Amino acid sequence: MITVALAKGALLRDSVERFRMAGLDFSAVLDPDNRQLMVPSTCGRARALLVRNGDVPVYVAYGQAQLGIVGYDVLREHQMPVAHLVDLGFGGCRMSVAVKDTSGYTRATDLPPHCRVASKFTRCARQYFDSIDLPVELVHLTGSVELGPITGIAEAIVDLVATGRTLRDNGLVAIEDLFHTTARLVGHPLALRLDQGELQGIIDTMQRSPQDAVGVS
Amino acid sequence: MITVALAKGALLRDSVERFRMAGLDFSAVLDPDNRQLMVPSTCGRARALLVRNGDVPVYVAYGQAQLGIVGYDVLREHQMPVAHLVDLGFGGCRMSVAVKDTSGYTRATDLPPHCRVASKFTRCARQYFDSIDLPVELVHLTGSVELGPITGIAEAIVDLVATGRTLRDNGLVAIEDLFHTTARLVGHPLALRLDQGELQGIIDTMQRSPQDAVGVS
Repeated sequence: MITVALAKGALLRDSVERFRMAGLDFSAVLDPDNRQLMVPSTCGRARALLVRNGDVPVYVAYGQAQLGIVGYDVLREHQMPVAHLVDLGFGGCRMSVAVKDTSGYTRATDLPPHCRVASKFTRCARQYFDSIDLPVELVHLTGSVELGPITGIAEAIVDLVATGRTLRDNGLVAIEDLFHTTARLVGHPLALRLDQGELQGIIDTMQRSPQDAVGVS
Repeated sequence: MITVALAKGALLRDSVERFRMAGLDFSAVLDPDNRQLMVPSTCGRARALLVRNGDVPVYVAYGQAQLGIVGYDVLREHQMPVAHLVDLGFGGCRMSVAVKDTSGYTRATDLPPHCRVASKFTRCARQYFDSIDLPVELVHLTGSVELGPITGIAEAIVDLVATGRTLRDNGLVAIEDLFHTTARLVGHPLALRLDQGELQGIIDTMQRSPQDAVGVS
């Protein structure tokens, strides 16, 4: 029995579609009335765990799921021991530094040393500010990071930017990109080593699938 | 201008009601169409920040909000430097250890040493298992912790239990309580020291308010 971990939210629809193209139909998870967190495929030889974004690499790292689809941003932030298999191309966005559009800052290095930066992705942010040698105080928030500069809890934020609309709506502007992120197929290393072709078949199909245009508006 | 931090979710309605009784009406945040994260009171002399549970103590600790209402569980887990002011009584639930109802375990000390325990509250869980001298491996999950024992990623979970329905629906049973939690009014220590009576008036009213029955079903 193959178990795959799928992230609730923005990546779910495309994730289900990619597994469907590889022969595993989990479309039951897209039913708005679905309350189950463990959903069998229509063929019965696999099941999907419907979990939060950040939990996908955990279930795969512990081998409770042999495969999973999750954003590269989550993989960078959580650093769990999973095999990165395929860049699936969809779910494209940028991890960016953003500031108030009235701040006058145009690059990350314009930020004053020891200023506060709010983020859900404090590990990514720490690595980035270390790499540009700018000491900042990171404030870990779990949601609505765009409130940071508005309330004054932080001078800047590090957050995912897709269309940029949330930033604009809150009077913020992105001034620097840390990296580009897309959805990735990941696997449990030991399961892959013991695989007798079943997992490899799925990986091969996903590798051949036409990738979405990796564009960010 | 007084700023208060309110947690989205289960505590919101009662939190708004307590502030209303203390003279600050933030009922606009209860409007299902409200998309604003910073909402003025109807009197105009205060504003509410609508943030996630875990972010309430952050906004209060940094002084961006002078007061906030949040569950004791969050205060225990995050350990931010905020003043605990009033036990408001509502939002009562227990932080419990739960296992599969078929497991045969009836107390936390029945769990095998070095077993895995999944939780969103790994700091609370670590303190508890240290206190009973049981070495366990904690697996941090961000949601749907009840999947832990079902998938086999963990033998037990540590999670909030209100009615116990989620546990029952997933074939789990609570075998030990770590602590009881209710909503708490917290404050920024420096703001309280500099207060000229405005904050104290709110605190006094909340202290006098009839507390909900602190019952758990």
